[in-house]
Amino acid sequence: MTTSWQGRKALITGGAGFLGATLAHRLASLGAEVTAVDSFLPEGGANPFNLDGLAAPFTLVKGDIGDAVAMTPLIERSDAIFNLAGRTGHMDSMSDPLGDLAANVTAQLGLLELVRTRRPTARIVYASTRQFYGVPDYLPVDEKHALRPPDVNGVHKLAAEQHHLIYAKVHGLAATALRLTNCYGPRMRVKDARQTFVGIWIRRILEDQPFEVWGGAQKRDFTYADDVADAFIAAIDAPACAGNAYNLGGAHHNGSGAVSLDTLAEALIAANGGQGGFKRMEFPADRKRIDIGDYEADDRAFRAATGWAPRVDLVEGLRRSIAYYRANLAHYL
Amino acid sequence: MTTSWQGRKALITGGAGFLGATLAHRLASLGAEVTAVDSFLPEGGANPFNLDGLAAPFTLVKGDIGDAVAMTPLIERSDAIFNLAGRTGHMDSMSDPLGDLAANVTAQLGLLELVRTRRPTARIVYASTRQFYGVPDYLPVDEKHALRPPDVNGVHKLAAEQHHLIYAKVHGLAATALRLTNCYGPRMRVKDARQTFVGIWIRRILEDQPFEVWGGAQKRDFTYADDVADAFIAAIDAPACAGNAYNLGGAHHNGSGAVSLDTLAEALIAANGGQGGFKRMEFPADRKRIDIGDYEADDRAFRAATGWAPRVDLVEGLRRSIAYYRANLAHYL
Repeated sequence: MTTSWQGRKALITGGAGFLGATLAHRLASLGAEVTAVDSFLPEGGANPFNLDGLAAPFTLVKGDIGDAVAMTPLIERSDAIFNLAGRTGHMDSMSDPLGDLAANVTAQLGLLELVRTRRPTARIVYASTRQFYGVPDYLPVDEKHALRPPDVNGVHKLAAEQHHLIYAKVHGLAATALRLTNCYGPRMRVKDARQTFVGIWIRRILEDQPFEVWGGAQKRDFTYADDVADAFIAAIDAPACAGNAYNLGGAHHNGSGAVSLDTLAEALIAANGGQGGFKRMEFPADRKRIDIGDYEADDRAFRAATGWAPRVDLVEGLRRSIAYYRANLAHYL
Repeated sequence: MTTSWQGRKALITGGAGFLGATLAHRLASLGAEVTAVDSFLPEGGANPFNLDGLAAPFTLVKGDIGDAVAMTPLIERSDAIFNLAGRTGHMDSMSDPLGDLAANVTAQLGLLELVRTRRPTARIVYASTRQFYGVPDYLPVDEKHALRPPDVNGVHKLAAEQHHLIYAKVHGLAATALRLTNCYGPRMRVKDARQTFVGIWIRRILEDQPFEVWGGAQKRDFTYADDVADAFIAAIDAPACAGNAYNLGGAHHNGSGAVSLDTLAEALIAANGGQGGFKRMEFPADRKRIDIGDYEADDRAFRAATGWAPRVDLVEGLRRSIAYYRANLAHYL
C-alpha cells in the first residue's frame, strides 16, 4: 500500500489548515517535496503555526486556488495534488451563497481545468464531505445513499466532487474524492466552533471552563487527523480509486463506529484525566433547519480498495489533541 | 387546477427560447402580464420570431439573468417566475466548463438571491433536466433515482436545482423544479441539432432530405411543448409542490411512454404523410462518453400533485410541428 514518496512533488491546497497541514507534515516525513498553498481566510482553519517545524524543500505559497496565474506553475510541477482548499461554513454559505460558490466551485473547476490542460498525469484527491447526504435514510451511510445537500455549502461541495469524478471519467484524470465526516486532532481551529465544535470543547477544557453540548443525543462519526492524512495518501497510491468517491469513518469506540455527543463529552473528560464538565444547551432553531441528524459512515469500500483503516481510537485521539493544545494553545487563540 | 391568470405578472427567463416562448404565448392567452427576458445566445434556442404575435402588455427584455441591476426591477414586480434560462449544450459544457458554470449556476444563484431579498412571495418554477440521472439503473426513472451527472452541464443543472429546493426549504420560497426530458414542438431550434435532434430531423424532412439517425435503438421520452407549458403553469398553481423536484414525461405512444429513435423516425415520416427517409449513422465516440443510454420518465408524482397529464400524442405532436415549420421555416434558418 505505501509507495515511496522520496522526491515526489506534492501540492496541498488549503495546506495551512488543519488537515492540509497534518498532510504536509506526514508527506514531508515520507520524503516528499511538499508545497502548501493557502489563502489564509480569517474564518477558516489556516494557521502558520500548523506548519511549524517544516523546512526546505517544503514551500508555503500564500494565494487563492482561484488565481490561475499563481496556480499554473504549482500545478505544472506537481505529481500529486491533495485538494483540501475550501470554505466549510454552513451558516456562512447561507448568508453569502455567491462567495461560497466562488470559493468552492468556480475556483475548484478552474483548478481542474489547469490540471487537465497543464498536468494531466498528476494524481488528485479531493476533500469532500458527508454533509450532502443530508438527514440519512439509514445508518451506517454508504456511498449509494441519496444525495440531498441541506445547505448551499453542501450543494457546492457536491458540485466540486462531481467535477472531479467527471474529469476522471471523461478526461482520464486520476481524481478521487474522500467524503470526510467530523475530523479532529492537533492543528484544528480551537478559538471558536467555526471549524469543529470539538475545538472549542478542548479549549474550554484547557481553560477549566465547562464546554457547551448543544443537544447531546445526536450521533457523529469522528476521524482522527492522522487517519485522515493516511487515507489521502492511500487514495493517491491506489490508481483504481480514480473516478470514485469514498466515505471515511473513524476508529471504532467501544464497538461503535459513531458516538453521541454525550459520549464524546464523556470521552473528552476521560481523556483529560477525569477533569472537566459541560453545560447542556438547546439546539438553536436557525441551525436546526440545516442540521443532518445522526450520522455514521460505512467506509468499507475505501478500506477494500486501499487497505486503509483508521487506527486512533476516540479517547486516544482526544488525549493527543489535549496534549497538543496544552503545549501550543497560545498559537491558536 | 387552473387558477385565473388575469392581471398576474409573469416573468419568463429564457423567454425567447423554445419552451419559454411557448409559455409566453400560453400565459398571455390566459390574461397574464408577461415579461420575457433573454440574452439571445447564438448557440441557444432564442429567436425573436418565437414571440411573434404577442402584444402589450407583453414585454421583451434583452439581457442576462446574471445582471442583477437589470433583473432587480423585473423580479420586484413578478408574481410568478418561470425560470428557463440556461445553457443546454453538453459538449459545450465540457469545452467551456467555466462559462457553463457562470451561466447555469452563478447567474441562477444570483437570481434566487434577488427573489429572496426583493420578492420572496413570488412563485418560481425552475426548468431542470433528467440529464443528471446519468445512465439509468432502472426504467421508468422516478425522482428517487441516484443522481449521477455524466457531464459538466449536468453538474451545473443539478446544483441550480438544489439551490432552488434549499431556498424553498430554508428561506421559504415557493420554488419547484421540473426535470424535463426530450421536448419538441413548434419554436424549437431546427437549423442544427444544438437544442434537439428532432429539430434537424424536421428541417431535413421539409427540405426533402434524409435525416440522420445516430444509433436508433436508444429510447427517449418525448414531451410536446404545450404539455410542458401546462406543467409549468400547474406547478406554479400548486403551492404544495414547493421544495420538490418532479419528473415530466410525454404522452404515451402506442402504449409506451418511451420510444426508440427508430420508432420516432417512423412516427415522423408517418406525421409527414408517409414522405421522407433517413440514413443510419454510427454513434460517435466523443459523445458516447457522456451519453445516457435509454430513458423513460416516471412522472406519477407530478401528476398526483397537480392533476397535470401530457395530452399530445407523438404523431400528433410531430404533425403540428411539421405544419408549423412548413409555414415558418425561413424564420428558423
